[in-house]
Amino acid sequence: MPESVDTLRSFGPLGNGDGFAVPDTPCLLLDRARLGANARRFLDIANRHGVTLRPHLKTCKSVDVARVLTGGRDDAPVTVSTLAEAEYFAAAGFTDILYAVGMAPGKFERVARLTKDTGARVTLLTDNLVVADAARHFAARLGVAFEFLVEVDCGDGRGGVMPDSELLVQVARRLHEGDGTAVRGVMTHAGQSYDTNDPVTVARIADRERDAAVGAANRLREAGFDVDVVSVGSTPTVAFAESLAGVTEARCGVHAFFDLDQFGRGVCRWDDLALSVLATVIGHNRASGIVLVDAGGLALSKDTSARHFLPDAGYGYVCHAETMQRVGPLSVTAVNQEHGKIAVDDACRYDEMPVGSQVRIVPNHACFTAAAYPGYHVIDNGAPCAYWSRHNGW
Amino acid sequence: MPESVDTLRSFGPLGNGDGFAVPDTPCLLLDRARLGANARRFLDIANRHGVTLRPHLKTCKSVDVARVLTGGRDDAPVTVSTLAEAEYFAAAGFTDILYAVGMAPGKFERVARLTKDTGARVTLLTDNLVVADAARHFAARLGVAFEFLVEVDCGDGRGGVMPDSELLVQVARRLHEGDGTAVRGVMTHAGQSYDTNDPVTVARIADRERDAAVGAANRLREAGFDVDVVSVGSTPTVAFAESLAGVTEARCGVHAFFDLDQFGRGVCRWDDLALSVLATVIGHNRASGIVLVDAGGLALSKDTSARHFLPDAGYGYVCHAETMQRVGPLSVTAVNQEHGKIAVDDACRYDEMPVGSQVRIVPNHACFTAAAYPGYHVIDNGAPCAYWSRHNGW
Repeated sequence: MPESVDTLRSFGPLGNGDGFAVPDTPCLLLDRARLGANARRFLDIANRHGVTLRPHLKTCKSVDVARVLTGGRDDAPVTVSTLAEAEYFAAAGFTDILYAVGMAPGKFERVARLTKDTGARVTLLTDNLVVADAARHFAARLGVAFEFLVEVDCGDGRGGVMPDSELLVQVARRLHEGDGTAVRGVMTHAGQSYDTNDPVTVARIADRERDAAVGAANRLREAGFDVDVVSVGSTPTVAFAESLAGVTEARCGVHAFFDLDQFGRGVCRWDDLALSVLATVIGHNRASGIVLVDAGGLALSKDTSARHFLPDAGYGYVCHAETMQRVGPLSVTAVNQEHGKIAVDDACRYDEMPVGSQVRIVPNHACFTAAAYPGYHVIDNGAPCAYWSRHNGW
Repeated sequence: MPESVDTLRSFGPLGNGDGFAVPDTPCLLLDRARLGANARRFLDIANRHGVTLRPHLKTCKSVDVARVLTGGRDDAPVTVSTLAEAEYFAAAGFTDILYAVGMAPGKFERVARLTKDTGARVTLLTDNLVVADAARHFAARLGVAFEFLVEVDCGDGRGGVMPDSELLVQVARRLHEGDGTAVRGVMTHAGQSYDTNDPVTVARIADRERDAAVGAANRLREAGFDVDVVSVGSTPTVAFAESLAGVTEARCGVHAFFDLDQFGRGVCRWDDLALSVLATVIGHNRASGIVLVDAGGLALSKDTSARHFLPDAGYGYVCHAETMQRVGPLSVTAVNQEHGKIAVDDACRYDEMPVGSQVRIVPNHACFTAAAYPGYHVIDNGAPCAYWSRHNGW
């Protein structure tokens, strides 16, 4: 009896007595070798294009992951999506931070505190005159300098001025003319690259992203501004861009881990998937034909973006805990807050996934799944080797 | 210039200089009066039925909210969905905790530590013999007692044995016969109450929920077991149940805050909605016809459950920050990680929501939206009066 029950708790190679606690489930597993390979691939891409990689840390929100993504350089440029991230990475020694979400007038005091406290150079983003005016006001009031990129819309339809608009030059001028404000360049993001899984189409979107950014930069240069930064990026466009001529830096984030969404659009291979959720089987409902696991909508997130190109993605693919190979065609087919339902295709699955056994679930969208957790259980050749914390929230 | 920019930062009554920090956005606002009224309504319902309310704290994950939901009694029975919640509430003095997710063999050591450390009575849940056997094994090994409810499936098709199954009695017997294990009763959850917005249909589902639980309890009594606990509940069935005869306790959680999903199914009125996300307008993209806010998919969650009965729910209704009245028919129509897009119906919306102004967004599903935040900015008559922390994770 003790023998058989104890094996239920075994993680196989995940709990091999090397001094790291066996993680309770649900938890995030991060494969260090895959993370490293993904990081190198995108550093190489940037290098090949002759641009700087400015990894977006909104996916990982982890200093330890960031050091891998930057090739080990704390002074490497990075991108963040919240001021909480900016504060966390600046406190850890990152000195060149782009806050790549449109600035709000109410956030200047917080940025001023951050730059005074840490000495980090934080570059802000805007596409409007209200924020440009507010920047001038707060720079004067707080005695600090605020540097900006002007956000350009390259077809995503989210933030940004049109690259050929008068507003582009007006925003730059308003910032340039302020005593404590400056414009360093332009930034754009081809979010529309997520609408396709065809690499050739993505390459054409990458052309448009580059042309919008470089065109906007050249218009600012013609208007008399120095433009040092021409920033582009989304993980698909960086992966498939054919030329980044005129661009100075490329941004991407989910390349750190990849996920079913990226796999479905061909941006990564199955063996590049570095992030999974470890879950425990807590029940079999044979009348309903389901295996129940303790990873539900909070542990996996309710993001279902991968279904666009992988109709069977559900809330994630179900994999063997040790091998990361899929369990037949199974996915998590429904979720409640703390329950994941796996509809089984064959009664043999109940024996394959007994109550108490563990499975790994590859999520739809790593950025959203990871955001529910305080950190990563890092594994190396399947064995736990480290715990890396994350910094969530705003 | 300073005047006009400063007003951009004003929260109106939310930032009225009463000593509480103006919250940065996005953040959660919790209306204390509405929370109190919602709590009283469901305490009254339970009282009218002559059953104990065992509020589910998976929605709030907050000791301060829990004290309101229990009518101020720390010794009141409560429900949790994670062992992290159990530990947090036990450490805060809650002594009667039901962990209402199927137990896993790998979690007994953690539960034993919790009960030894805090003295709290933690009741566990299972529907299978593997966990019953593991309970006996770990009770003997760890020298602690484990008490269970047997989970019954009343038509939800998630966890639970059928109320008329042999397995019901077998699981109870296996637990009863262990030296350190016991069965206290039965529990069921009518998750299928979420499939309808018709109160009469919900009342019939509540009948079935009650009948399944009471029927299972009676079968166990006939088999010779003492059954002290007959536990039922979901927020809709508790709200609309006509009789809870034979039931001892009712569970519900989202009644604390309510949300668009509950509003859409008629479980609450508009003026009962206690939780909203405060967001800041960060841009206007007139070419795309959108107002951009700094509350995206992480701040609002990607749960879209409310669309089932409110097709225009989007990722939440957009409301005026001060009045909580809707801004026309607007909702958050699309999200990225930190961006919310509000498609505007009329150009006047740009003036109504200038860059830097704030809006409140009523989320689809409070349990999921709240889970992204470390706590609540509590407001009283629109003014900040407290900050209540949450305990997320597993």
